[in-house]
Amino acid sequence: MESFTAAERRSAELTRAIDRTPETFRVLTGERPTGALHLGHYFGSIIERLRLQRAGVQTFLVLADYQVITDRDTTARVQENVHSAVLDYLAAGLDPQQTTIFAHSAVPALNQLLLPFLSLVTEAELHRNPTVKAEAAASGRALSGLLLTYPVHQAADILFCKGNLVPVGKDNLPHVEITRVIARRFNDRYGPVFPVPEALLTATPEVPGLDGRKMSKSYGNTIALSMTADETATVIRRTTTDFDRRITFDPDTRPGVSALLSTAALCLDTTPQTLAEQIGDAGSGRLKQVTTEAVNEFLAGHRQRRQQLAQDPDVALRVLRRGNDHANELADDTLFEVRKSMGTVY
Amino acid sequence: MESFTAAERRSAELTRAIDRTPETFRVLTGERPTGALHLGHYFGSIIERLRLQRAGVQTFLVLADYQVITDRDTTARVQENVHSAVLDYLAAGLDPQQTTIFAHSAVPALNQLLLPFLSLVTEAELHRNPTVKAEAAASGRALSGLLLTYPVHQAADILFCKGNLVPVGKDNLPHVEITRVIARRFNDRYGPVFPVPEALLTATPEVPGLDGRKMSKSYGNTIALSMTADETATVIRRTTTDFDRRITFDPDTRPGVSALLSTAALCLDTTPQTLAEQIGDAGSGRLKQVTTEAVNEFLAGHRQRRQQLAQDPDVALRVLRRGNDHANELADDTLFEVRKSMGTVY
Repeated sequence: MESFTAAERRSAELTRAIDRTPETFRVLTGERPTGALHLGHYFGSIIERLRLQRAGVQTFLVLADYQVITDRDTTARVQENVHSAVLDYLAAGLDPQQTTIFAHSAVPALNQLLLPFLSLVTEAELHRNPTVKAEAAASGRALSGLLLTYPVHQAADILFCKGNLVPVGKDNLPHVEITRVIARRFNDRYGPVFPVPEALLTATPEVPGLDGRKMSKSYGNTIALSMTADETATVIRRTTTDFDRRITFDPDTRPGVSALLSTAALCLDTTPQTLAEQIGDAGSGRLKQVTTEAVNEFLAGHRQRRQQLAQDPDVALRVLRRGNDHANELADDTLFEVRKSMGTVY
Repeated sequence: MESFTAAERRSAELTRAIDRTPETFRVLTGERPTGALHLGHYFGSIIERLRLQRAGVQTFLVLADYQVITDRDTTARVQENVHSAVLDYLAAGLDPQQTTIFAHSAVPALNQLLLPFLSLVTEAELHRNPTVKAEAAASGRALSGLLLTYPVHQAADILFCKGNLVPVGKDNLPHVEITRVIARRFNDRYGPVFPVPEALLTATPEVPGLDGRKMSKSYGNTIALSMTADETATVIRRTTTDFDRRITFDPDTRPGVSALLSTAALCLDTTPQTLAEQIGDAGSGRLKQVTTEAVNEFLAGHRQRRQQLAQDPDVALRVLRRGNDHANELADDTLFEVRKSMGTVY
């Protein structure tokens, strides 16, 4: 808890520093392309990426296709999900000139960094990572070698582009910590190649799934950014609510009602409590109507831009190829530096 | 033990098949460049590589520079060791036209294969590998992430070039087994990309160190191929023997005497027992003289060729670059196939 407070304080300082000297920061964020991007992604990470881009920070966005198979046996639909995510990024306003969007599997020199980095951590350190434990438990499968080493792969993502700032929720602080350990140990053993990146704690709002659980494609409780207004109305209509006509915000006893309130409130930039009072005793039919309108209005511009972009079937590929090329240039340079400092250039 | 007998039987079949259709086999072998190559390498692996090359099998030889740091914190002298090894390979008769000699760190697409392959094995399977356990215990250090995942990296070495035959001592059968598991699982999940390689058990003679322990640079008990005749005489003279003038072969009670007998016998193509009888009661002075002459005569041609080669300071680099280029071409092709079959080409 103490270290969390320290991280919060440091993040406030970093936020001020970004405003003063955005050009001194380089940020890596990423996404597992396991499904269509949804409102949770929008409020949870896309808005933060837009903020950093607008501030003038150079950002990198990895579509972590190899992370899809940390806890499953198939890459089916990964390509489709990657294309769809790129369309959402562009529609949301990410500019490929400022934000390098690339895929893991397209950047061999980045992936090679996994090798020297794995030598810098012990198996015990890998095991200590709470996210790995939680994800292994959630998957209900035996821990794969890829899931176990995933924080080291993430260190390669951050360090290949000399990222020095990593926006994270508090659950992901341990990942940044292992990246810091790897950067420090590498520099100590082989010479100063890497920055020691810092965590930027982001105050991302909780976006619950429509059933009140965590919003997740696997629960089928998401509102995808790419849905039509009608599809959105349908999934909202299907939300399980209750017969109490008085609308109140109480996630424990009224998960469906409260999830709708949270969703609508985020889109309307108000609080769930205020919205509940406004709806009063108009019942969950009215609540669903308000939520549908709020979401559809909030996403109208995004969806329109997305649809326009999608008329060019190659736009996502072009952006990705450009991003892959840029990522490869940087990764090749960094790998060469790494090999020079390790004395393994022949 | 049953599986070992089966492996022996299968190896005999494979040996006959190599004679019949050498062009259907592709072999990967490798070396950790932790020090100068010595007589143990010569009898333990170089002779086998020459045999395969002469049979007309396409072979690949990886200088596994990343494996140096599985159990140590430094890459000091790796570059020197790699250069020295290449000179020894050339002097021994390996032909860079038939044997692709390359370094791990120079082939990013090979290393990238580690990522999908790590998804195909569980942590429990990684732990079960007896070589990893033994090496971790021998290093006296905490198990590094790189040592834990080393059999998967080795699978990438074998499979990147579609190797289908792996010469191994019986201790390394588990490595080939994990490669077979990875090849099968990949093919099952994503489509037929890889051969399922087979182990070729090699009957390599035991070459003891001069103190009777395992020959190992870290024990200082080796005869490097690159030593001069005088240096060889010096290290043999320093061997601890005993005062019994009657020379007998008894590794348990007379480790030094027996190690000298083994070494000389290998170089003279006889048995240690026969040699002991020939020396009779001429004492360890005579034994050392016989051994020095045997080793120096055996290595004379090798050392002369090595010295001639070394007059061109770039010869090792040229061979390595040519090998790296060839390995990169193959690795890029294989990685592209892997990405296509996984549906991650953008």
